[in-house]
Amino acid sequence: MHLVAVIGSGDADDALVALARKVGAAVARSGRGLVCGGLGGVMEAACEGYRAAAGPDDGLVVGILPGDDPADANPWVDVAIPTGMGIVRNALVVRAATAVVAVGGESGTLSEIALAWQMGKPLCALSTSGGWAQRLAGAAVDSRPREPVAAAADVDELETWLRGVPPR
Amino acid sequence: MHLVAVIGSGDADDALVALARKVGAAVARSGRGLVCGGLGGVMEAACEGYRAAAGPDDGLVVGILPGDDPADANPWVDVAIPTGMGIVRNALVVRAATAVVAVGGESGTLSEIALAWQMGKPLCALSTSGGWAQRLAGAAVDSRPREPVAAAADVDELETWLRGVPPR
Amino acid sequence: MHLVAVIGSGDADDALVALARKVGAAVARSGRGLVCGGLGGVMEAACEGYRAAAGPDDGLVVGILPGDDPADANPWVDVAIPTGMGIVRNALVVRAATAVVAVGGESGTLSEIALAWQMGKPLCALSTSGGWAQRLAGAAVDSRPREPVAAAADVDELETWLRGVPPR
Amino acid sequence: MHLVAVIGSGDADDALVALARKVGAAVARSGRGLVCGGLGGVMEAACEGYRAAAGPDDGLVVGILPGDDPADANPWVDVAIPTGMGIVRNALVVRAATAVVAVGGESGTLSEIALAWQMGKPLCALSTSGGWAQRLAGAAVDSRPREPVAAAADVDELETWLRGVPPR
Repeated sequence: MHLVAVIGSGDADDALVALARKVGAAVARSGRGLVCGGLGGVMEAACEGYRAAAGPDDGLVVGILPGDDPADANPWVDVAIPTGMGIVRNALVVRAATAVVAVGGESGTLSEIALAWQMGKPLCALSTSGGWAQRLAGAAVDSRPREPVAAAADVDELETWLRGVPPR
Repeated sequence: MHLVAVIGSGDADDALVALARKVGAAVARSGRGLVCGGLGGVMEAACEGYRAAAGPDDGLVVGILPGDDPADANPWVDVAIPTGMGIVRNALVVRAATAVVAVGGESGTLSEIALAWQMGKPLCALSTSGGWAQRLAGAAVDSRPREPVAAAADVDELETWLRGVPPR
Repeated sequence: MHLVAVIGSGDADDALVALARKVGAAVARSGRGLVCGGLGGVMEAACEGYRAAAGPDDGLVVGILPGDDPADANPWVDVAIPTGMGIVRNALVVRAATAVVAVGGESGTLSEIALAWQMGKPLCALSTSGGWAQRLAGAAVDSRPREPVAAAADVDELETWLRGVPPR
Repeated sequence: MHLVAVIGSGDADDALVALARKVGAAVARSGRGLVCGGLGGVMEAACEGYRAAAGPDDGLVVGILPGDDPADANPWVDVAIPTGMGIVRNALVVRAATAVVAVGGESGTLSEIALAWQMGKPLCALSTSGGWAQRLAGAAVDSRPREPVAAAADVDELETWLRGVPPR
C-alpha cells in the first residue's frame, strides 16, 4: 500500500484542525494509506479525517513516533512505529511516503519539507494553511532540477494533485 | 494494531523457509500484525505464511527496509517503511514490535535479539531452528532481571507463548 | 571540546568557497571544534579554513558522513563518523553542535536549520551568503519562544556572535 | 584519525574496570583514537586509560551518546556526539570505527559485536573478560566468510592484534 505523508504542527488551532481533517479525508479517497508523525495537532486531525472517510475497515494510518512507546500515538493510528530516535525520526516520516502533503507547519514541518525535497518526493502544500506550507506553496526549495512544491488552494485541488501523483 | 516481529536470516534453506511460513501463520492466528525487515529468506517466508493464514483482507504485514526504495520489499509486505539507514534499521524492527520471535538467525538476527532484550521486549526463539535462535532459546542474554528468552520447540508452543504475551 | 556546526551546500561557487573558508577560520579562532557533514563545497571549504587558521596541531574537525566509508570525508576532516544513514544524518550534524552557523544553503541546509531551531540550538546565518542562510538571517523560523536566527553580515560579526554563545 | 571502538557494559566491577583501563591504554599506544558509547563502566575506564597513556595533548576520545546532552559523557571524552537516538546509536559506535575491541559485555555489547560482524569490521575480544566478549572470542558469529573474532588473552595480545589491523 502506498503511503501519503501528511506533515504539520503538533499544535493547531480550530481552523487548521478542520482543514487537516479534510486533508486526511482526501488522502483516504485517493486510495492510499496515510503516514504521519503520529502525535497531535495537524497529525491527529488528518488521521481522524482519514478514518472517518475510509470507514472502519479500509485504508491504513501509520504513525512514526519520536518516542519508544506505541501508546504515544493518537487514537486514530492503526500502526504505531515507535523509533526512540526523537526528531531524527522526521526524516523517516517522509522517507516512508510516496507523496507528501504539508499543512501549516512550524520548524519540524519545515525540516520534513526540506528533506522530502532533497529525497525527490512529490510535494504539495496547502496554500492557505499558513506556516511553511503557505510560504513554500508553488515555490522551489532550492536549485535542484525538479518540480516545485505544488500549491493546493483547497482540498479539491489537493485531490486533483493526488490523482496525478504516480504510485511511486 | 500490535505487531509481532519475526527476525531471521535473509538466506534460508528449505527447512527454515517451511518453518518460517508456519511462524508467520501463527502470528496471523494470534490476531497481531507482523513486522520484519521486509526482505527475503526467513522474512519473506514469514510474510507469506502470515498472508496465507490471514486471508487476503485481514491482518497486516509491515516491512522496515534498510534501503530507500519501497520496491525492495518482498511481495507479501503490505506496508513498506524504507529507512535509508542500512542495518541501523535493525533496531527499528524490534522497537516497532510488542513481542519478538527469532527463527534461525545469523549476525543481523543476533543484533536484533540483543537489542530486543535490552529494550525489555518479550522474546521467543524457535529452539530447533538452528542459528542464534536455537543457541539462545531458554537462555538469559545478560544479567538483567527479566524473563529469559522463551523456547518454542514447535509452532504449537509458539502459539501458546503468543497467547500469553500482553498486548504491550 | 565544544563543536560548532557549519552547514551549507555540497556545491559552492568561488565566492561561497571563499566565505566558507573564512567562516571555518572564525570557528577555529573561537577555540571550538568544527563539525559538518564532512563532504565537499561549503563543508570542505569551512574545514580547510579551520585547519589553516588552527595550525596543524590544534583544534578538531569532525565530519558526520551519510555513507559508511570514512574515506568519503574531505581531506581536512580529522575524525570521520560514517553513519550509513544517508541524509537522516543531517539531524546528527546539528545535534552534535553547541552552536550552528549557516552559509548559503540548499534543501539539506534548510533541513538542518529547521532541526537546529527545533532542538533549541543557537543559530547564526551569514546574511550575504545567499540561499536559505540569507533568507532566514535575522528571522524566526516559527512561533517558538526563542532567539531568532542571528544575522552576521560578515565574518567579524560572526566572531562577535561566537564569543557570545554559551559553551553549551 | 582512525578510531578503535571499545565496547563493553556500562556496569563494571573492579576487575573489569582495571582491564578496560589497560585496553584503553593499548589503543592509545596504537596511535589510533578511541570511540565508545561515552558513558560509564567499561566505556569510562577505557577512556580514562586511553587519556592516561596518551598524555594530555595527544590522541582523541570520542563518545557517541544515546541522549541529546553532551554533558552525559564521561569526563575523559574529548568529543561528545549526542545523538538523541537511544540505543539505536549502538550501530553508530561500531560504524565509526575501523576496528572493534570487546571487553566483558552484556546485551548492548552483544548487539555491537553482531553489528560490527555484519559490517565486516575487524573484531577482537578479550578472552578472559567474561560476558559476551569471552563467549565469542575466537569464534565465528555466523557463516559469513570472514575472519573469526580474534581472541586476546591479555593486553599484550591485544596490542599485537592492533598492530596487524589495517588502518581501514
